[in-house]
Amino acid sequence: MSGSCGRRWEPRLGVLGGMGPLAGAACALRIVQLTSATRDQEHIAVVLLNDPHVPDRSSAYMAGGQSPLPAMLRGVNALVGAGADCIVVPCNTAHLWFDQLQQACPRPILHIVDAVIDDLRRRGIADGTVGVLGTPATLELGLYQDRLVSSGYRPMIPRQAEIQSLLVPAIAAVKANRVSEAYSSVARAIESLGRRGARAIVLGCTELPLAVPHERRPELGIVLTDSIDALALQAIEWMNRYAGTCAA
Amino acid sequence: MSGSCGRRWEPRLGVLGGMGPLAGAACALRIVQLTSATRDQEHIAVVLLNDPHVPDRSSAYMAGGQSPLPAMLRGVNALVGAGADCIVVPCNTAHLWFDQLQQACPRPILHIVDAVIDDLRRRGIADGTVGVLGTPATLELGLYQDRLVSSGYRPMIPRQAEIQSLLVPAIAAVKANRVSEAYSSVARAIESLGRRGARAIVLGCTELPLAVPHERRPELGIVLTDSIDALALQAIEWMNRYAGTCAA
Repeated sequence: MSGSCGRRWEPRLGVLGGMGPLAGAACALRIVQLTSATRDQEHIAVVLLNDPHVPDRSSAYMAGGQSPLPAMLRGVNALVGAGADCIVVPCNTAHLWFDQLQQACPRPILHIVDAVIDDLRRRGIADGTVGVLGTPATLELGLYQDRLVSSGYRPMIPRQAEIQSLLVPAIAAVKANRVSEAYSSVARAIESLGRRGARAIVLGCTELPLAVPHERRPELGIVLTDSIDALALQAIEWMNRYAGTCAA
Repeated sequence: MSGSCGRRWEPRLGVLGGMGPLAGAACALRIVQLTSATRDQEHIAVVLLNDPHVPDRSSAYMAGGQSPLPAMLRGVNALVGAGADCIVVPCNTAHLWFDQLQQACPRPILHIVDAVIDDLRRRGIADGTVGVLGTPATLELGLYQDRLVSSGYRPMIPRQAEIQSLLVPAIAAVKANRVSEAYSSVARAIESLGRRGARAIVLGCTELPLAVPHERRPELGIVLTDSIDALALQAIEWMNRYAGTCAA
């Protein structure tokens, strides 16, 4: 689409964060760190709404709590109003409302599970058993499982007792800024899925990559796909595809 | 201001980032990490505009380049449009245009130098010689020096040769995502000011704290004040002062 147009389009990426806030800010940071740039002006433009007042997504699904959808729709509208041309939502559980969000939004929203599946392929995992860690709500509702199956993978999730004793407290610790406390629980959940035959593990709740620092990942001895990084990479690809094309 | 009002005000903080983008995203992240919270909903609401297309601030002042002011004004307007009640700008050099920005903005903008001076006091440095690292533009124009003097400090800046050989390449390396390359230059500039009698050092360009990871700061053996963290703390204080008061 480049060529004779007079003005280059500089698209702006919207990040609907706050769910949780550390994951939202980390997503904005990883977008910068994963962009290939030699000076400020080569980075991509991002507007992040890190509003933590969205009602808890898991409680809404699992305990009949207040729906987060109205707050998420207000957030999406604020991002579009601030010039977002494309939106990402760095919260896996929020994707249980993806269809309603996309239906109400005049801009494309990139789906986090598509981003993770692209990342698995980028890492050479094209089939086989893939373990998924996430919130009880996403695991119970099969957010990842259906799309993994239709992409040729065999999904595997932790046992119910592990979800409650390892993942739930780890996710809560990250949301309370007690990140270092969460590592050992997440590592145990990863090792357990590895022993049961998974060849890769999806960190499929955006709090989980925060619990497993990049520098400690090699010691776990299994391919990890990080839903924050996967979403950041997908967003960078989208932006690079359109940056510099003709402005409308 | 709390009491009989029907609706609690949940203020939203605007962050005019992108200058550079890593500093903008790091500021949003540090706001989360430095907030005392036990769950998502206790964090503060932030909207970050991380638009890296603002013309280079240093070039504008030092080489007659394009002014960044129109782009910064558009950014401030976008943040106010997205609900920002108070604004911070995690770029020291951008503060050379602070008065024009504040004049055009209907919301308070917190000044990064005030935040740093508050942080010096928080760290027990109430007077004496304080070294300032920054861009050639801010050091030449005295962004920090005047305010430090009127707050009772004696400012000290690096020698011209050190600014050019240590700080300029370190700042450029951070903007190009080559963060680890910048550490030794910044450490040398810190040590040089320490030898000349500074009892604390201001990392007075938002790229500089990114070059000196928190875990390596103790080995430098001098009080460091980090302009990103100082600004984040000032913003958190502002937000906590107004959160929960009566909505207008």
